[in-house]
Amino acid sequence: FTRSDLDYIFDVAHEMREMVARVGSFDLLKGKILASLFYEPSTRTSSSFTSAMERLGGSVIPISEVRYSSVSKGESLPDTVRTLECYADVIVLRHPEIGSAALAAKYARKPIINAGDGVGEHPTQALLDLLTIVEELQQIDGLTITMLGDLKYGRTVHSLARLLSLYNVKINYVSPEILRMPAEIIAELDEKGIPQAQFNGLEATLPNTDVLYVTRVQKERFEDQAVYESVKGAFVISPETLKAAKDYMIVMHPLPRVGEITMEVDDDPRAAYFRQMEYGLYVRMALLAMVLGKA
Amino acid sequence: FTRSDLDYIFDVAHEMREMVARVGSFDLLKGKILASLFYEPSTRTSSSFTSAMERLGGSVIPISEVRYSSVSKGESLPDTVRTLECYADVIVLRHPEIGSAALAAKYARKPIINAGDGVGEHPTQALLDLLTIVEELQQIDGLTITMLGDLKYGRTVHSLARLLSLYNVKINYVSPEILRMPAEIIAELDEKGIPQAQFNGLEATLPNTDVLYVTRVQKERFEDQAVYESVKGAFVISPETLKAAKDYMIVMHPLPRVGEITMEVDDDPRAAYFRQMEYGLYVRMALLAMVLGKA
Amino acid sequence: FTRSDLDYIFDVAHEMREMVARVGSFDLLKGKILASLFYEPSTRTSSSFTSAMERLGGSVIPISEVRYSSVSKGESLPDTVRTLECYADVIVLRHPEIGSAALAAKYARKPIINAGDGVGEHPTQALLDLLTIVEELQQIDGLTITMLGDLKYGRTVHSLARLLSLYNVKINYVSPEILRMPAEIIAELDEKGIPQAQFNGLEATLPNTDVLYVTRVQKERFEDQAVYESVKGAFVISPETLKAAKDYMIVMHPLPRVGEITMEVDDDPRAAYFRQMEYGLYVRMALLAMVLGKA
Repeated sequence: FTRSDLDYIFDVAHEMREMVARVGSFDLLKGKILASLFYEPSTRTSSSFTSAMERLGGSVIPISEVRYSSVSKGESLPDTVRTLECYADVIVLRHPEIGSAALAAKYARKPIINAGDGVGEHPTQALLDLLTIVEELQQIDGLTITMLGDLKYGRTVHSLARLLSLYNVKINYVSPEILRMPAEIIAELDEKGIPQAQFNGLEATLPNTDVLYVTRVQKERFEDQAVYESVKGAFVISPETLKAAKDYMIVMHPLPRVGEITMEVDDDPRAAYFRQMEYGLYVRMALLAMVLGKA
Repeated sequence: FTRSDLDYIFDVAHEMREMVARVGSFDLLKGKILASLFYEPSTRTSSSFTSAMERLGGSVIPISEVRYSSVSKGESLPDTVRTLECYADVIVLRHPEIGSAALAAKYARKPIINAGDGVGEHPTQALLDLLTIVEELQQIDGLTITMLGDLKYGRTVHSLARLLSLYNVKINYVSPEILRMPAEIIAELDEKGIPQAQFNGLEATLPNTDVLYVTRVQKERFEDQAVYESVKGAFVISPETLKAAKDYMIVMHPLPRVGEITMEVDDDPRAAYFRQMEYGLYVRMALLAMVLGKA
Repeated sequence: FTRSDLDYIFDVAHEMREMVARVGSFDLLKGKILASLFYEPSTRTSSSFTSAMERLGGSVIPISEVRYSSVSKGESLPDTVRTLECYADVIVLRHPEIGSAALAAKYARKPIINAGDGVGEHPTQALLDLLTIVEELQQIDGLTITMLGDLKYGRTVHSLARLLSLYNVKINYVSPEILRMPAEIIAELDEKGIPQAQFNGLEATLPNTDVLYVTRVQKERFEDQAVYESVKGAFVISPETLKAAKDYMIVMHPLPRVGEITMEVDDDPRAAYFRQMEYGLYVRMALLAMVLGKA
């Protein structure tokens, strides 16, 4: 991705947003069929793609029980994909193994959209995260982004950090010691001249933060539960927390959340995480239209 | 619900019936998307809503594997609903816990239709039962309704009895001793002046019955299997049984049936239980059109 | 089926192929609803029917978790079908028990399409196999068809052999001793005057073969693994194998394959097995249009 690739996607996604606001659905992809091939369940992502295709007037072949099905009877992914492309115009693939999307794309004649492959990329998530910032705060350059929580295992923050490195931003990492952002990502962003800083708590960074990206700190990551108990409070966002934040900033979260942002925050206009889901729809509409040559 | 609410629903449902008979499907809800969120499987209900939405020209996001999916990864129902309403225009919810639909509706900005929540209400079933009576017998006032079988645990007969209390009807309850209609429901209808009577067998009541509503007497409800064996015959409807019934009456059943109405009855014009399924379609079409502001 | 039945289906399927090539999808079945009722999973077949219905502008009610669902709560197949036909215009049925499709059709008012019932027929597979030959080689009369692999348990080769007996063809059977084509099928074709011959290997027959139909030889079929090891090489198709074949011939396979045709063969223009999947789409489009009175 270059910045101009991203700009183009965000422009199309913004148009999609306006069309949905104006007419709900329209017939840009009427007659087109999406095969939604999920080797592992992800209701959020598959629902979002289904909605995107339907709002564009297209149809969906949902394939979500792959484990039990004859398709999986030892059949290779390339064969499954070459079968499905007989029936569909585009395939969205979610697969537990890293590199699956690239493998599928190598053999397919029709476009493959990667909806996550194992610990590999989950590109539509990173795109919707970035679109959220653009739509909510108008631009990315000049912003201070603070990532909070589990920065070690959280795939979304890794992808987001990489994409952000295309822009002129500052990034703060706030996490427990044992869940720090991986050194290789920090090095990668260093090389691109992105100012980065690490913290154990939000206090110092929140007042300057434009985007607070929250992820969950899972109990299971801690060998010593006493350590978990001692740190967990620092990674929960409540209305109290937000008193120290700017008025014009946003709180993001990839969802699902389980307590790391209290429900009282939901009514705060800065709580952008449900709007973030909606931007996911527009990004997926944009991608579908683009790969099918309609944008 | 008031009688005039019901009248309105039944009028719209009747129109839906006529439109389906005339054109099959039409584009009243073209471009609208229904998220069909089933936390427990119910093929009959979900198929009926899917068909209703499709016959109105709309689309469906089917979400039926909630247990295995990331949506359920500890996510609260309000969060799931607020995510889905980013993708859909209306949500149909089936959930095992009582009160779920009300909880979901409290947090949602988009309409929620309750397709059953545990031992709570299953309002579309009661509506389709009532519509069946209206469509088959023209009116409800003046009728004698006889409910047969398991009246203690059968959720459908409870809801139906309550709705019937808005009308000028007589209700007979025919059940084994241990599966009587609950006292609080009888008291509730008593207060509204509905004449009710209890019986152990059909003989005395069938000749005066306009609507015979059959439910299954499950073996598992009986501690003493000898008691079950001694009563079960009294709760099976056969062509022989119907000889004592009026010519102009209907036999209803919420389905599935497992022997409590013999297959020989199916060819009798009074057997209304499959038509009842069809009325379910019209009720659901009416509800979808109404909540989306199109009726 | 008579030859003229088949000719008609193939003509309609050919038209479908041309329409899909020209416009992708069209509105022949707009407003029509297909209930896709799969009592056992078969992603390939259900996806193909879903695509067929969607390319014709119709909608689908997918019902694939029948085991867990209330429909299966002891409900009989006729009752399930009579419920679904309240919601749909046509039902595609896949069921593990032989005779299910006939049973369903007996009780249904709407058309039932058999998508396989146990060891019974799987008629759409046989039709798509035959269509593949017609579309790829222009005609069936005069051809030599060689069936390779497991001819004893392979349902597809049995159905195909029976349909081929309507034409003026030669059939060769190449299989391990223990996986021969059943004697009753050979007798059936003998009576119709079809020349048939059995072989242990491809060498003698491949140079004269117009259609090579490959099926998998499963290890599990062999009690003595040494026998399996000694024969398996003879039933794998590689580019080397095809050197002895005609230039103008096709290799077919019902898929999924697991090694019995090497991936290197895929780029050979004679490899017709993925195109075969595509013909499956056209056959199913043709059948749907025909049973709904639109072809």
